Amino acid sequence: MASALTPQAEDFPRWYQDVVAKAEMADNGPVRGTMVIRPYGYAIWERMQAEIDVRIKEAGAENAYFPLFIPESYLAREAQHVEGFSPELAVVTHAGGEVLAEPVVVRPTSETVFGEFMAKWIQSYRDLPLLLNQWANVVRWELRPRLFLRSSEFLWQEGHTAHDSYEDASAYVNGIHTNVYNDFLEKVLAMPTYLGIKPPSERFAGAINTMTCEGMMRDGKALQMATSHELGQNFAKAFDIKFQNKEGQSALCWTTSWGSSTRLVGGLIMAHGDDNGLIVPPHLAPTQVVVIAVREDDEVLAACNKIAAALKSAGVRVRIDNGGASFGRRVTDWEIKGVPIRVEVGPRDLAEGVVALVRRDSSEKVSISPDAVAASVPGILEQMQSQMYESQLARRNANTHDVKSIEEAMEASQTGFARLDWELVGPAGEAKLKTDAITVRCLQRRDGSMPVTDTEKDLICIVAKSY
Amino acid sequence: MASALTPQAEDFPRWYQDVVAKAEMADNGPVRGTMVIRPYGYAIWERMQAEIDVRIKEAGAENAYFPLFIPESYLAREAQHVEGFSPELAVVTHAGGEVLAEPVVVRPTSETVFGEFMAKWIQSYRDLPLLLNQWANVVRWELRPRLFLRSSEFLWQEGHTAHDSYEDASAYVNGIHTNVYNDFLEKVLAMPTYLGIKPPSERFAGAINTMTCEGMMRDGKALQMATSHELGQNFAKAFDIKFQNKEGQSALCWTTSWGSSTRLVGGLIMAHGDDNGLIVPPHLAPTQVVVIAVREDDEVLAACNKIAAALKSAGVRVRIDNGGASFGRRVTDWEIKGVPIRVEVGPRDLAEGVVALVRRDSSEKVSISPDAVAASVPGILEQMQSQMYESQLARRNANTHDVKSIEEAMEASQTGFARLDWELVGPAGEAKLKTDAITVRCLQRRDGSMPVTDTEKDLICIVAKSY
Repeated sequence: MASALTPQAEDFPRWYQDVVAKAEMADNGPVRGTMVIRPYGYAIWERMQAEIDVRIKEAGAENAYFPLFIPESYLAREAQHVEGFSPELAVVTHAGGEVLAEPVVVRPTSETVFGEFMAKWIQSYRDLPLLLNQWANVVRWELRPRLFLRSSEFLWQEGHTAHDSYEDASAYVNGIHTNVYNDFLEKVLAMPTYLGIKPPSERFAGAINTMTCEGMMRDGKALQMATSHELGQNFAKAFDIKFQNKEGQSALCWTTSWGSSTRLVGGLIMAHGDDNGLIVPPHLAPTQVVVIAVREDDEVLAACNKIAAALKSAGVRVRIDNGGASFGRRVTDWEIKGVPIRVEVGPRDLAEGVVALVRRDSSEKVSISPDAVAASVPGILEQMQSQMYESQLARRNANTHDVKSIEEAMEASQTGFARLDWELVGPAGEAKLKTDAITVRCLQRRDGSMPVTDTEKDLICIVAKSY
Repeated sequence: MASALTPQAEDFPRWYQDVVAKAEMADNGPVRGTMVIRPYGYAIWERMQAEIDVRIKEAGAENAYFPLFIPESYLAREAQHVEGFSPELAVVTHAGGEVLAEPVVVRPTSETVFGEFMAKWIQSYRDLPLLLNQWANVVRWELRPRLFLRSSEFLWQEGHTAHDSYEDASAYVNGIHTNVYNDFLEKVLAMPTYLGIKPPSERFAGAINTMTCEGMMRDGKALQMATSHELGQNFAKAFDIKFQNKEGQSALCWTTSWGSSTRLVGGLIMAHGDDNGLIVPPHLAPTQVVVIAVREDDEVLAACNKIAAALKSAGVRVRIDNGGASFGRRVTDWEIKGVPIRVEVGPRDLAEGVVALVRRDSSEKVSISPDAVAASVPGILEQMQSQMYESQLARRNANTHDVKSIEEAMEASQTGFARLDWELVGPAGEAKLKTDAITVRCLQRRDGSMPVTDTEKDLICIVAKSY
């Protein structure tokens, strides 16, 4: 059967579009740059949300919900912030049949409105740290939209916290970056990342430091999977977020913000997908096993139901595909959707006392007794999860090149990442890289750990083309 | 200690405002009519979402996400729909620094955009029914906003389905109304409702039939807790939602929509609250038990931790309050928040081998061995849940009066609900009721069941003032 997708090697962006469409992940919305997330894409996002949310709650933050509409004047209070976001704003000028006295913007991010209410709610050091998060939609007008990767509206979580000291703020946001984002990326998304801080030129508008997790896609480009910001006292000054300290004096808070979005779905597709479609890591997959009836036949369906029930009891997320289109067509569709394991149940196999078990990552097919499926599957899923991570790590390492000059970095960035001494780059180097759409993705220490500031000595940097 | 709240009997709306503020449920947002849902209010909403979502999934619908922005022209395609929603729309006229060629509206509800994509995705009868739902924010500009009850932006779920026949559509949406909404209201929110259909004058804009669940608040007014709509073929015509039937002919679909929102939080407060604050039914409560250290003391804290761990093992949602403010102040705060059970752990009680267990609904206080708490609590929570429902039912029944005329209905509506023959009302009766802000909340059969249409003979109706 001919593949339904453009091969990656032929045209990676078109392969991506094909997967998004044929796996029924998302469609373009009617307003330019917006998207409709279809049930399969949304089920993946729901699993991401669940895994990230539990980690956020473990980190002590509580969910809340702040308004979609922000007075235009709020953004102007933090100079860098308004400069960074103004070009991307959507503005409501009319509501309830009348022209609004002050136009309101649709939130592009919510530091300003969180700041306003933190100032109201925080009185003393006893109210700190204040640890908040919200799951919400945000709007940043995109001129070159791409489903999941760059959409004018996207879904995300944004955490906002206030602390009584730089040290506490810094330690907290570092913990979020490491124990929420990177832990999720490694353990659930099976994706190794370069963890580091952004160079000053790439910081979030209004931040004193931005941390990032950079993933490598299969075309060698980078995708920023999540970012966490130390905001210093910039927003505390702009929104008057003060507290009475233990000595009874009034002091400014230190705030942070951190976010991850539906962009993660794009990263999932581009890191793990192959020419047959998506491959979803078992820990993430909304459907871990699909039990497919080769033919619609009572005996076959009974066997499918029995296997699915046993898998469900074993804690596996399972569904049954009992027909409709041809068997071959259905197999292709499940491959495109990247369900980790297929159990194919056919009358001839059943007569011999077996069913076929096929792994999506290796296409390895084994015959197994129907009664043995439920006992085998959990172990196979775990093995697949760790092998997917190992294979990503190997690919990433093989495509990251240590180089000694900007020129070599530019060459290496055509197919992967380059790593070089940060002092070899500097503002002039960054400008030169940008002539070929290459940027410094992050700064790291030589051992790969995350620096505290970009002023640390002896840092290295990762440079790449990016989404 | 003086109560922190305005008594209900003195000023019910102010009591409501006080509870929302002092239980830290929500604040007014900076843009008129918007709200900030604070962590405690949001935790209650998250519990509502979880309970409703699992029921929606059991009914076979899948979650998706459709865009916030809808082209203005979409709304105009269904005449009644645009007429109903136009006065409440917020309109984006500028985005990305430019004037938009076509203004876009911020969704007030999403029938139109779901309709557009249903038309794309549905080809044949095999694609039906198409059962979708989304959790999202919507905007309807409010001139007289009230937190949770009427806010310009609110959170909700909206289900949208397409079917191959009137019968299938009708049966499905009836199932949603009964098995999702009413089941949730009765079993989780401990709230009996009058289940019925709206009179034609109160239908959703574009529907051929609207079902409702009407709850009675403690001031005798009605609150519409959730609504479900049969849209007939109105939206199928407007958006060309067609399918090829089994006979190979092209036919129009029948669609439905159904929604429940953060308004439920307002209903929870006004149905169950008393002069000491909120009372959250145990099945809903994000915190079912708070274990309070009377004093900060090592022995007390150790006992609190042990009790909380045992409760957690027993599947109870528990948290510890180990100090900060005075004991009395903390008790008042937990009462205002309506946590079902308090376990008070003090040094004197501990010396006698007991702790105090206090129910929020009855204020009954019993002494109990710390080791017996975890075994007792689940049963007490279940008992409290069913007693709260029974008490609501008794209050509602006592305040629903069977009457024989519009005049009597108007009198009964000053303090509760009136029930009378629908044929005694009619358009003239509705107009007269409205002179005192009274409306027909729903039509029912004499046995209290839900009619199929308002043209059935021998119907009765419930009339009341409402939120």
